[in-house]
Amino acid sequence: MASEATASGCTEGLGRPPPPPAVELFKYSKRVLLKSILGRADGGMEFVGERVVVGGWVKSCEEKRKPNLPAQALQPPPPAVVKDTSCTEFLVSRLHILRPIVMFFTGCGCSAVSAGKQDSLAKPLPGIGLLRISDGSCAANLQIFVDSSLIPLSEISTIGTSILVEGVIAKQEASGKQVLELKVEKVFYVGSVDAKNYAISNGKLSVASLRAYPHLCPRTTKVACITRIRNSLSYAAHQFFQSNSFLHVHMPILTSTNLRINGNMLEVATPLSPVEDQAAKTLGAVKAAIKENCERIEELKRSNGNKATLIAALQDLHQANELALQLEQKQNSSLMKVVREDFSRTFFGRQIYLTNSAGLHLESYACSLGSVYSLGPTFQAECSLPTKDLAESWKVEVELAFAELEDAINCAEDCLRYLCQYIMENCRTDLKFMSKTIDNQCLDRIKSTISSNFVRITYKEVMEVLKKLNSIDLIASVLIESSFRFLADEIYQQPVIIYEYPKDLKPFFMRIRDDGETVSAFDIIVPKLMTKNFLSESVFANVKQVAVDVGNLIQGGQKEERLDKITARMKERCLAEKEIEWYLDLRRHGTVEHSGFRIGFEEMVMFITGLDDIRDAIPFPRAKGSADI
Amino acid sequence: MASEATASGCTEGLGRPPPPPAVELFKYSKRVLLKSILGRADGGMEFVGERVVVGGWVKSCEEKRKPNLPAQALQPPPPAVVKDTSCTEFLVSRLHILRPIVMFFTGCGCSAVSAGKQDSLAKPLPGIGLLRISDGSCAANLQIFVDSSLIPLSEISTIGTSILVEGVIAKQEASGKQVLELKVEKVFYVGSVDAKNYAISNGKLSVASLRAYPHLCPRTTKVACITRIRNSLSYAAHQFFQSNSFLHVHMPILTSTNLRINGNMLEVATPLSPVEDQAAKTLGAVKAAIKENCERIEELKRSNGNKATLIAALQDLHQANELALQLEQKQNSSLMKVVREDFSRTFFGRQIYLTNSAGLHLESYACSLGSVYSLGPTFQAECSLPTKDLAESWKVEVELAFAELEDAINCAEDCLRYLCQYIMENCRTDLKFMSKTIDNQCLDRIKSTISSNFVRITYKEVMEVLKKLNSIDLIASVLIESSFRFLADEIYQQPVIIYEYPKDLKPFFMRIRDDGETVSAFDIIVPKLMTKNFLSESVFANVKQVAVDVGNLIQGGQKEERLDKITARMKERCLAEKEIEWYLDLRRHGTVEHSGFRIGFEEMVMFITGLDDIRDAIPFPRAKGSADI
Repeated sequence: MASEATASGCTEGLGRPPPPPAVELFKYSKRVLLKSILGRADGGMEFVGERVVVGGWVKSCEEKRKPNLPAQALQPPPPAVVKDTSCTEFLVSRLHILRPIVMFFTGCGCSAVSAGKQDSLAKPLPGIGLLRISDGSCAANLQIFVDSSLIPLSEISTIGTSILVEGVIAKQEASGKQVLELKVEKVFYVGSVDAKNYAISNGKLSVASLRAYPHLCPRTTKVACITRIRNSLSYAAHQFFQSNSFLHVHMPILTSTNLRINGNMLEVATPLSPVEDQAAKTLGAVKAAIKENCERIEELKRSNGNKATLIAALQDLHQANELALQLEQKQNSSLMKVVREDFSRTFFGRQIYLTNSAGLHLESYACSLGSVYSLGPTFQAECSLPTKDLAESWKVEVELAFAELEDAINCAEDCLRYLCQYIMENCRTDLKFMSKTIDNQCLDRIKSTISSNFVRITYKEVMEVLKKLNSIDLIASVLIESSFRFLADEIYQQPVIIYEYPKDLKPFFMRIRDDGETVSAFDIIVPKLMTKNFLSESVFANVKQVAVDVGNLIQGGQKEERLDKITARMKERCLAEKEIEWYLDLRRHGTVEHSGFRIGFEEMVMFITGLDDIRDAIPFPRAKGSADI
Repeated sequence: MASEATASGCTEGLGRPPPPPAVELFKYSKRVLLKSILGRADGGMEFVGERVVVGGWVKSCEEKRKPNLPAQALQPPPPAVVKDTSCTEFLVSRLHILRPIVMFFTGCGCSAVSAGKQDSLAKPLPGIGLLRISDGSCAANLQIFVDSSLIPLSEISTIGTSILVEGVIAKQEASGKQVLELKVEKVFYVGSVDAKNYAISNGKLSVASLRAYPHLCPRTTKVACITRIRNSLSYAAHQFFQSNSFLHVHMPILTSTNLRINGNMLEVATPLSPVEDQAAKTLGAVKAAIKENCERIEELKRSNGNKATLIAALQDLHQANELALQLEQKQNSSLMKVVREDFSRTFFGRQIYLTNSAGLHLESYACSLGSVYSLGPTFQAECSLPTKDLAESWKVEVELAFAELEDAINCAEDCLRYLCQYIMENCRTDLKFMSKTIDNQCLDRIKSTISSNFVRITYKEVMEVLKKLNSIDLIASVLIESSFRFLADEIYQQPVIIYEYPKDLKPFFMRIRDDGETVSAFDIIVPKLMTKNFLSESVFANVKQVAVDVGNLIQGGQKEERLDKITARMKERCLAEKEIEWYLDLRRHGTVEHSGFRIGFEEMVMFITGLDDIRDAIPFPRAKGSADI
């Protein structure tokens, strides 16, 4: 039905015939996705001769004079100017030595691009354009062949131009190998680019410089790959937990609970407007009147009473509404200066924070429904390394009832392996691009994670192992917890699960073991995560005293289910019970052994892709002093 | 491997043999889920004779004296006291007339329960307990048979007690029909309940009164059903979009963009501490020193230089760390009173809000990657009906590039139908319970949504239709937009898609049509959504002037992709361009036709379940003045 509608809309719409059935039509857009062509095993060769409509954004353009025109009939053609985002991106980022050379020849990065652009604008020539376009559905670009008789090439040659065209898929000989090419016959739509002001067309292509344009950077091959990988990771997580009978529960962002477990929290402060105090009463009265009026109207309607009365009543209602509306607008018009200690005058009537972990609330659902997970943003107001900490970061959090430490570890290990497996199967081309441009080890890292049995070792044993290293590393290991990465990187060269930590290194709710000194907590340390400035970063991590370790991808453990024990631990940490009476209720009433863990979602993206700056692992990163777009 | 680990952990752990292979073991807990037994077509009869370990919470308990004991050997047995949460819940909620009667006989609701409890506590007797337990994996409870020789019944008879037991599955004749029963042979674990303080055991079972205990209410059958349905809805949404090549992008909660499209926004105000200004410089210096030191250490390590020097350096480092740590703690110790206009002193250095729609940011990814969606929380500071508005509510938001109004409508219709289909197939028992206890029409409503072709009608045509109604309803329809529900409820009795709205009724970014008066926006109105106090609520909706209409489940439309047109609309609305330069960039550079929509996730839960208060459709609801737990 819907597809019929689309088809008819097709002919009604821009008057294009529906594309041939052989290539799968994207159901909710009058085009085919490039991945439906280029994603095939044969790279789409099976579709040669098919007529299709495709849409996308120009990644590169090569202009040529028409071969069939006699040379002397032309002014000397402009030199074929190659503008290839992903290519330059690739070369410069891989061979940094190239940058100065590029700079030398082009002034700045690829500004030859815009130079060439103005050039072709200046004297448009009869010719052909070889464009490479991307629609975001896959890493590969499609080469399209446009004759300037269809549209002036200057209108479509700028990188970033959007274009919707119909054409026939053809085979093309290019430097000895077959490539697919779309011979364009109709141009339905072009969205041009204001080249002078288009930030990402003029060579600023390092991931770092792209950060200034979070709304445009997904148009680059690199950020598009990261986005597709992130999408797959999140869906894979859902698949894993749903197939294992976990319930996805949506946990609140707004919370009154602040135990400062992960450092400072961001705070909501929405004051009531000063007007409200006076206006509120009036408004209340009016609303009451409205409600009364409504009930009266309902009665009149039920009793099919006198219509004149009813209409009169409805008109009263109308006036009352307008008055109420004015009052509300007045009320919402201005925000007052608020003395922050007076929370009675704020929207929630008390101090409210943005959660830095769904864990506590998640426990209450685990202690009712068994096995639950959440996947959502968490918040922290930390003042540390921007490459390592975000104010808004996503977490997978998991909680299991009737489960001990070992159950949580097994679940975390299986989950990590499943995510890697899923990415290998579903993001091959994206991974290839990442390993070409970001980290050539990422594929090996993922493969070995899938195949290896993770090492399981207690914190005590870790210390033994480190003692065996030379004294420097020992001291380092004492000073810098991050030396745990030695285990994953150097000693075992695979993920390492460290468990049974000294109680002071972990939150109060971790289950205390019989020795009274250690808790049933665990971390999973993965190799080669955030290798950039590892030592200095680790020191800052130490300074920050945030539990998250460099290379530390997953943290978890068995929670303290015994009321007396958990209240004792809270006293040790000077935490007020009244803060979380509700949390202690879970221990007072029908408590159970329960365990859980959390996966840093950005860290997971970094582990898969090899990115070394957390800001590149999330759209619109938020950090101290930066939340502009 | 992992399952071996579990099995071994099993024997190591509490010394229980692994349950028989016939019943599927829950991989990450040493028990089977009740749904693995009760969820089978035959209700689990195939497993009679199997030995299993199950865990859960007591929903009801019936105590009996042992049949095999001679009566005279006993003190007169206490009357068999039936404590059945879901039963009382069910009866009272269905037949409200029962409540006063219950009250009369029991004092308050089911306090007979706790009375009976104290009774049995007073004089424990040799006897048997017939418990019904639930583990949250399905709506059904399992009856378990416990002999008091295993454990004093008083320890397990209280509603809410958690229990982990091993036993053999048996068939039992009960009032003529076969029921499954677990004959308990071992009790591994009991988590008792502080009955006097256990809020939800003493008859407070109406959904409304449960709201005071959001951390405990998932233990009730009703809230558990809602949670399972919500889980399925969210997974179904992911399945629908992933299978249609949409990318899930995680959009930011924190934003500097405030267009007040959906009313007031909540605001983040995290000041820097006053200490920081002085401390910051010092801290900066120390950190710099640390970094330098680290580089030196790395060098020394590389060059395998003098170890003494190295150790000295590491000790310097240690001291520097401690100093930095002290400074940071000092810095984070106190929050200052903040003059709200001075945002330069806040964490983000500017005014930051909690997003009330991911839509704008989502467009930037649609205009790069084609088809994208997000599923996450949105926020609003509105002061309206708590039954209708939340401060924190979840939305599915969708954006399609190269797509017109009709594409978005087709996608929204298919999505809604898919969600209903998925729930019918995956939540049968939960739906049955909801239709028994909340809304007996919900099953029909879902079925008809799956089978019916939605009516598509323009706003203009709607007005024609309403003119044909009698004058009262006409006036009502003019006064109260919610009369659109007449269309879905009375006239067509199926979902209705209304499109082409007068531009003033929709946001500035909806695409203006050639008539210059209407925009390519649409709503999907569903029947019988929030029927409670529909008229009065709708009036308040009108007062609030929030676009969301009663019964209005989905809103969307084609976005304005033309720079000149959208800036013109912004002028009409007095919106400053500089507020969203980044958003206009999407029109300046490679713009495309694009369309999208949003689904209110709580509204979807209400549509499926028939709940009439939005606070019951989400865990830990947040509203004005209520965010306590």
